[in-house]
Amino acid sequence: MSIVIRDCDWVVTQSPSREILRDCSVRVEDGRIVKIGDSEHDAEYVVDGSGKVLLPGLINTHTHLSMSLMRGFADDMRLQEWLETKIWPLERRLTGEVCYHGALLGCLEMIRTGTTCFMDMYFFLGDVARAVEEAGLRAILSHAMIDLFDSKRSETQRKMTQEALDAIKALGSRRVGFAMGPHAPNTCSEDSLLWAKEVAEREGIPIHTHIAETRHEQAQFEKEKGMSEVEYLEKIGFLSPRLVAVHSVFLTGKEVELYAKNRVKVSHCPVSNMKLAGGGVAPVREMVSRNVTVSLGTDGAASNNCLDMFDTMKICALVHKAHSWDPTVLPAQQVLDLATIEGARALGLESRVGSIEVGKEADLILVDLKSPNLVPIHGGNTVVSDLVYAAHGMNVDSTIVAGKPLMLNGRLLALDEEKVMDEASRAALALTG
Amino acid sequence: MSIVIRDCDWVVTQSPSREILRDCSVRVEDGRIVKIGDSEHDAEYVVDGSGKVLLPGLINTHTHLSMSLMRGFADDMRLQEWLETKIWPLERRLTGEVCYHGALLGCLEMIRTGTTCFMDMYFFLGDVARAVEEAGLRAILSHAMIDLFDSKRSETQRKMTQEALDAIKALGSRRVGFAMGPHAPNTCSEDSLLWAKEVAEREGIPIHTHIAETRHEQAQFEKEKGMSEVEYLEKIGFLSPRLVAVHSVFLTGKEVELYAKNRVKVSHCPVSNMKLAGGGVAPVREMVSRNVTVSLGTDGAASNNCLDMFDTMKICALVHKAHSWDPTVLPAQQVLDLATIEGARALGLESRVGSIEVGKEADLILVDLKSPNLVPIHGGNTVVSDLVYAAHGMNVDSTIVAGKPLMLNGRLLALDEEKVMDEASRAALALTG
Repeated sequence: MSIVIRDCDWVVTQSPSREILRDCSVRVEDGRIVKIGDSEHDAEYVVDGSGKVLLPGLINTHTHLSMSLMRGFADDMRLQEWLETKIWPLERRLTGEVCYHGALLGCLEMIRTGTTCFMDMYFFLGDVARAVEEAGLRAILSHAMIDLFDSKRSETQRKMTQEALDAIKALGSRRVGFAMGPHAPNTCSEDSLLWAKEVAEREGIPIHTHIAETRHEQAQFEKEKGMSEVEYLEKIGFLSPRLVAVHSVFLTGKEVELYAKNRVKVSHCPVSNMKLAGGGVAPVREMVSRNVTVSLGTDGAASNNCLDMFDTMKICALVHKAHSWDPTVLPAQQVLDLATIEGARALGLESRVGSIEVGKEADLILVDLKSPNLVPIHGGNTVVSDLVYAAHGMNVDSTIVAGKPLMLNGRLLALDEEKVMDEASRAALALTG
Repeated sequence: MSIVIRDCDWVVTQSPSREILRDCSVRVEDGRIVKIGDSEHDAEYVVDGSGKVLLPGLINTHTHLSMSLMRGFADDMRLQEWLETKIWPLERRLTGEVCYHGALLGCLEMIRTGTTCFMDMYFFLGDVARAVEEAGLRAILSHAMIDLFDSKRSETQRKMTQEALDAIKALGSRRVGFAMGPHAPNTCSEDSLLWAKEVAEREGIPIHTHIAETRHEQAQFEKEKGMSEVEYLEKIGFLSPRLVAVHSVFLTGKEVELYAKNRVKVSHCPVSNMKLAGGGVAPVREMVSRNVTVSLGTDGAASNNCLDMFDTMKICALVHKAHSWDPTVLPAQQVLDLATIEGARALGLESRVGSIEVGKEADLILVDLKSPNLVPIHGGNTVVSDLVYAAHGMNVDSTIVAGKPLMLNGRLLALDEEKVMDEASRAALALTG
């Protein structure tokens, strides 16, 4: 399949030189970017980029996609109460079918708001994978392994993880991969953590784990183990370049050093962290200054309450500026980096996606500038400011993944939007009713 | 003119009991709400509310509308440098025509994102008023009085203010009012502040003033005057129920008490405060607990970078939860209150707008729930959660002000959208080029 996105007002490449091109066309063949610049307009799809910005699809490194069904179900509550009285009771009633419809709803929202690739952690992975395949997105899926230090549970969890891994392998998709998902150091036994790491090494895949999300969790852990979560993970040999450490809010300078030393990757989820108010602000500046790869995640829609990475980019910039009393902290270009090329790096996909370069796979989005919130455009690098501070996911009008258009000019091609929303509403009712 | 908005899935009334009505119609005649409940469908406009939420139009109590032309022009800079090297040089080149086009662009964005009423401070008020009249919005406009303690300037500023007041009076609009706009205690002489208060008392209008926006400003003021801004304003007798104190970030408990004692109103602008990173977080909880009226503002698009009050509502909730380490702080219903009925109260308009009640003027918006970010709806009060945490201004599909539809089903009626955006782009180029 060939696509030409012609005459884009701007192409924000996110290439190593962060080049921004004016009045530029991009040609895609068989899923890959083959030309950037002038282009013949003979292609299966010719997409008009005039009045629009072309940029790499956004990469969301932490989701619980099926939880889209729990959006707005319970807000303004303390984390533990929220989990115990609202979320866990619902999760005990989950089925594969429910997870499928929740995942499809999440995919729809991501296509509409310009996310092309994400890393998910949840249950009923086979059903989630089916939704992702149907939607056409790129994803790395992980089964949430929670054994609660019970060896019988560990066994069941390992079996479920192995089955999920086999199912994803059987799928044989270039777009859908697997990650090991040991849930967190305070919900998984040492054995399970190390087993997950071992499988990840053998399979050459990422590890997806929540770490140091709240002050309470970190304090509790230290009380029980006499050391912090990261110190413990270092001690047992769990830290590795394959690890995507989600949240990582309550870290000391020493722990950031341990991340740097082990080349751990981070998924920073500012909206969820602020909304659940676990305390503190993730030390993003400190991590970046020690060359730790930091990427961005929305977390699930139950704690955000959307999957819009534009929303997360803006709030990420704002919270770190405000927290540092310094408006120059996390400038727009750096935030866009976290949501594109750094996201790709966190997932080990930086040679394939995350920027617009010849040879890379074509995960691309178009932002329509003909919207009052994106007028005027002052040109040059200010386009990046407009994307981070003024744009919203709903300004995205075209989404292409691996060279396949999933949405063009605001029209969904991959999914039947009405049907996905109707079935999700029904699934939510079945879950909560 | 008569309008029936029929069969709304939900009507979020914001009445004193915060009633939320299911499957409900609202009838408007001659600009006022005359019936809530069942309604005959014989009206000039019959608007289908099925699959939608009807709520009072949002009220933005601090804007610099014409600065929409400076959106994205200069970001990630320190406030003083930003003002001195970027904003002020542009402002020296302003003309009435430029301000008119900037204001029209701001009005367009507000209509699209569900704001029906706002309070503005800027220059060339006659031209701004012309834009607001054309757009059909409700507004209170103020001329930014800055005399820099120079009596000659004071005289000019008073003359300009008086002319602006006369121009607004001559307009004779029920929708467009005037406020006195002494810019800030650190840019206005005591004489000008007191003159502004005197005129406000005589005319029965609000006073619109920036107070304690940044740590630097407050510290500087204390160094020069030996007291804080609010103590000084109390001492000279400036504080009053007519005052809408914008920002009010750097306040002590004692200063909050002075606000309470003088029934001062506050316009809280969380996005701008975080982005300019002046330090600290406005003591919203403390103010609310002392019954100070707190409303929400976006500030200008040059420091936000949008005028979307849904964005401001979400970020307001997030920043106070995060700052307090408590997710129960500023729950969704309270945040929606700040953006509706408390906004009306801040502007002295609570008997006319801010809620959906029989007899009130019909400033109404419809949010379309057929969008992936607003699925599912769990019902009841969760609708308010969905509005505050998941909705975006672009989910608004109809905007009605004083019973006149400005946008219906996503189609602009009041303004020629393409023309407004084109002319704004040209005006921005004339300003910056």
